[in-house]
Amino acid sequence: MAEAIPVVVVGAAGKMGREVVKVVSQAADMNLVGAVERDPEMEGQDIGEVAGYGELEVPLTTDLQATLVMATQERGNPVMVDFTHPDFVYENTRAAIAYGVRPVIGTTGLSNEQIQDLADFADKASMGGAIIPNFSIGVILMQQAAVQASRYFDHVEIIELHHNQKADAPSGTAVKTAELLGEFGKPYNPPSVEETEKMAGARGSQTQDGIRIHSVRLPGLLAHQEIIFGAPGQLYTLRHDTSDRASFMPGVLLAIRKVVEIKNLVYGLEHLL
Amino acid sequence: MAEAIPVVVVGAAGKMGREVVKVVSQAADMNLVGAVERDPEMEGQDIGEVAGYGELEVPLTTDLQATLVMATQERGNPVMVDFTHPDFVYENTRAAIAYGVRPVIGTTGLSNEQIQDLADFADKASMGGAIIPNFSIGVILMQQAAVQASRYFDHVEIIELHHNQKADAPSGTAVKTAELLGEFGKPYNPPSVEETEKMAGARGSQTQDGIRIHSVRLPGLLAHQEIIFGAPGQLYTLRHDTSDRASFMPGVLLAIRKVVEIKNLVYGLEHLL
Amino acid sequence: MAEAIPVVVVGAAGKMGREVVKVVSQAADMNLVGAVERDPEMEGQDIGEVAGYGELEVPLTTDLQATLVMATQERGNPVMVDFTHPDFVYENTRAAIAYGVRPVIGTTGLSNEQIQDLADFADKASMGGAIIPNFSIGVILMQQAAVQASRYFDHVEIIELHHNQKADAPSGTAVKTAELLGEFGKPYNPPSVEETEKMAGARGSQTQDGIRIHSVRLPGLLAHQEIIFGAPGQLYTLRHDTSDRASFMPGVLLAIRKVVEIKNLVYGLEHLL
Amino acid sequence: MAEAIPVVVVGAAGKMGREVVKVVSQAADMNLVGAVERDPEMEGQDIGEVAGYGELEVPLTTDLQATLVMATQERGNPVMVDFTHPDFVYENTRAAIAYGVRPVIGTTGLSNEQIQDLADFADKASMGGAIIPNFSIGVILMQQAAVQASRYFDHVEIIELHHNQKADAPSGTAVKTAELLGEFGKPYNPPSVEETEKMAGARGSQTQDGIRIHSVRLPGLLAHQEIIFGAPGQLYTLRHDTSDRASFMPGVLLAIRKVVEIKNLVYGLEHLL
Repeated sequence: MAEAIPVVVVGAAGKMGREVVKVVSQAADMNLVGAVERDPEMEGQDIGEVAGYGELEVPLTTDLQATLVMATQERGNPVMVDFTHPDFVYENTRAAIAYGVRPVIGTTGLSNEQIQDLADFADKASMGGAIIPNFSIGVILMQQAAVQASRYFDHVEIIELHHNQKADAPSGTAVKTAELLGEFGKPYNPPSVEETEKMAGARGSQTQDGIRIHSVRLPGLLAHQEIIFGAPGQLYTLRHDTSDRASFMPGVLLAIRKVVEIKNLVYGLEHLL
Repeated sequence: MAEAIPVVVVGAAGKMGREVVKVVSQAADMNLVGAVERDPEMEGQDIGEVAGYGELEVPLTTDLQATLVMATQERGNPVMVDFTHPDFVYENTRAAIAYGVRPVIGTTGLSNEQIQDLADFADKASMGGAIIPNFSIGVILMQQAAVQASRYFDHVEIIELHHNQKADAPSGTAVKTAELLGEFGKPYNPPSVEETEKMAGARGSQTQDGIRIHSVRLPGLLAHQEIIFGAPGQLYTLRHDTSDRASFMPGVLLAIRKVVEIKNLVYGLEHLL
Repeated sequence: MAEAIPVVVVGAAGKMGREVVKVVSQAADMNLVGAVERDPEMEGQDIGEVAGYGELEVPLTTDLQATLVMATQERGNPVMVDFTHPDFVYENTRAAIAYGVRPVIGTTGLSNEQIQDLADFADKASMGGAIIPNFSIGVILMQQAAVQASRYFDHVEIIELHHNQKADAPSGTAVKTAELLGEFGKPYNPPSVEETEKMAGARGSQTQDGIRIHSVRLPGLLAHQEIIFGAPGQLYTLRHDTSDRASFMPGVLLAIRKVVEIKNLVYGLEHLL
Repeated sequence: MAEAIPVVVVGAAGKMGREVVKVVSQAADMNLVGAVERDPEMEGQDIGEVAGYGELEVPLTTDLQATLVMATQERGNPVMVDFTHPDFVYENTRAAIAYGVRPVIGTTGLSNEQIQDLADFADKASMGGAIIPNFSIGVILMQQAAVQASRYFDHVEIIELHHNQKADAPSGTAVKTAELLGEFGKPYNPPSVEETEKMAGARGSQTQDGIRIHSVRLPGLLAHQEIIFGAPGQLYTLRHDTSDRASFMPGVLLAIRKVVEIKNLVYGLEHLL
């Protein structure tokens, strides 16, 4: 069996960080070696105790560089998982690559220039790395299946449903899904009658490729998306429901395992599936 | 057991008429006694043969009045079922009431004045009758259950889905459902955040009571409606799917049975349930 | 405006108890006056602090009787909400009635004899009270709508879906729903062909009334139920999804408000809607 | 542009045959050149008239061999589409290959030996051909997406829903789907608690790989299948609904276009996607 992967979690006391700490510390092929958090008041506290999973003998620290150096001294290829703020993650990622630690970045908000720059830097260093805007394997599978279906169906509408605390519509995932479907360049939903909206907005929003997106907002909903393909005599529907951030952890573990095998930095979980 | 109800079907060779002929001729408590159709070329043809169910020994005729008179000479309380064009149905209904035959009208498109006038006329004659814009018992049950739920839920959105031959949106059933929910006068979907539509129409259409209606149009769909109520920690969803006009026949049979028991003209199947 | 209802919560530090403490302390027409918990180590701690909502100036106590007496000395008609173990709830309920405090009991597991005995006792005292096996208004509405639909549909199947930690199948709610549908005494799902199960269990379980119940168990599911009515050309589907115990709180508040208006003890939330 | 494909339809007056006649006669890249039907009374009638689409100038004939010969004399690579009974289709297919006409076979019921024999025969002749048990592209896409998802999800249940005229359960498509998911050899749905069925059959049927299949039978249903994958915090659901045999025609057209490009006989539409 291969050596366990030494893992450093940055932003370890945050909501996602705690989940990552939990699954990494339970993974047989990983070894939680460091937990970084900015708050000096937490310095020295055991991350397992802080996260409520019992002692893990990994004290929180504010010193990222020392932790990266320490990780490189462990057996195996070290990985840094970072779910901190976009303001910090660019520098953190450069540091990780510089020290020889493969970055797995879950933060959204990096600019295209920053992403390109980090990719170039990883390339020169022949270091694996991943920036992952959506760690949900289920969502990626749904999008890939939709792209596959779009070769055979000309009609498609998307319904995304979220809790009513979500301010913007449509959701980023729905827009991304429509973009992926649009890459073929074919026009969707060619009309067979002249449509009339008796009430404005009834037919939802429409992308430049003709895909309709409908956004439902209700308390009791969490995060859901449905892609409905239609053709004479049949419907083909793909649906994903998220009820807990635990759903992102398989994607995080997958990314940790994959970045030690590659020599460049990828953007998007789909490139690691 | 009570005497069978003599039934005259007007517009008997039309799509709905044929279905009515079929179920009436099969009902143990009904007796198909007349079949009226405007086309003189069909005069004398057996309606069973025309409709493809085998001989029923009921010839098609263009003469409504003679048929009504004949129906009144049968044992039992006669009923006329009419699915013809709005241009004819008003006169047909007056004639039925005048001759003592209870009308069951499936045609939409009568004006409010015409409906009121027919109700007054039936009232004076103490004759039962029914004008039914939607014969689907399932749709009526869904609407009633939704009204019941609206006493306890403040958040609701409607998604209606139809084939892409349907030109207007939202559907009449969805608008009617929202109207029924609005009768309490309470404002639905009070916002908890300030919503932003990044793409116009994403959040659907909105009634004056705040109910959102979304209209999906795809080949492969027939006629479907979903009403989703949300509250913290729960969703309550009502859905109706129509795949065939056979779904309207239980409502037609129910109306025939009920109009012989009442002494006035009602509007809407909900008043007969 | 009427006087606020003084409310005592028993089992206040438990999962449901904390939720009740939260919503009662926020309700304008209620006054949280007591919080009882068996653990002597928690004695004197503020229930708001314990539950994580900030100080409520209501200390936890192990002394139910003193708390009930104190509640009766407040203005208004006092109510006791009890989510403790079946072993204790019978005595707690008798005590509440004896002291003049209306019980709202959320614990399942009381025997029919115990329930009858408590009902008799409340009757003699002319005290309102409620034993509520399911506080979800949405579930009750779904069951009521299903009973209404069963007058018009002869075919129905139930699919209930729960997380894979649930050991028994079908769920209590599904069994209860089928019982309610069975009260009409009509046989459901009369077969139109002779069915063959090529794999045992494919067609689900079957009640004595012919209703099929299917149980799905998967991680990612929470608590869901679907009731599908079918007839030629149409489907009518009722679905309820529970994602959080917050969904039970409107039912708890409703019960508190209703028991002060009635003079007997009812079993089931449906009698308070 | 390539030459149009000459197409012979065998069983042309049957339900599927008429649909094939319709779409082939409308396809710009196909040329309906023959229509075979066993009934001598139909000999000479125009297939377009018989099928109700208006005259197509293609008379029905009982003589398959003469029709095949005629087809080979047209420009382009001829194709025979056959939806007849298993009793005839084996000989028909041999004849087509022998005459140099590529077979597209929609009949189920050929034995494995017959299929192998036809494949060998086509191989020797270097002739393309296809035997397609399910022409629904949507169903094939759903199955492929499910297989893809099964690499990442360990928990899955299948619900198939059909009209109550369907005698056997589970459906062939559900069984086939489970087989495809089982090809990885991994055990699905490892239990996390000891399950108890309080009513036999509640948990559905179970394949040797642990996949649960539930079969719902109701009037109003047509042919539907749902595959639900679950993991902590998420669900991924694939659903296909068939409402009309028109849904099979894109698969038929695809098969016609593909068999002129290949040199062997394939089994299953998935090999042509």
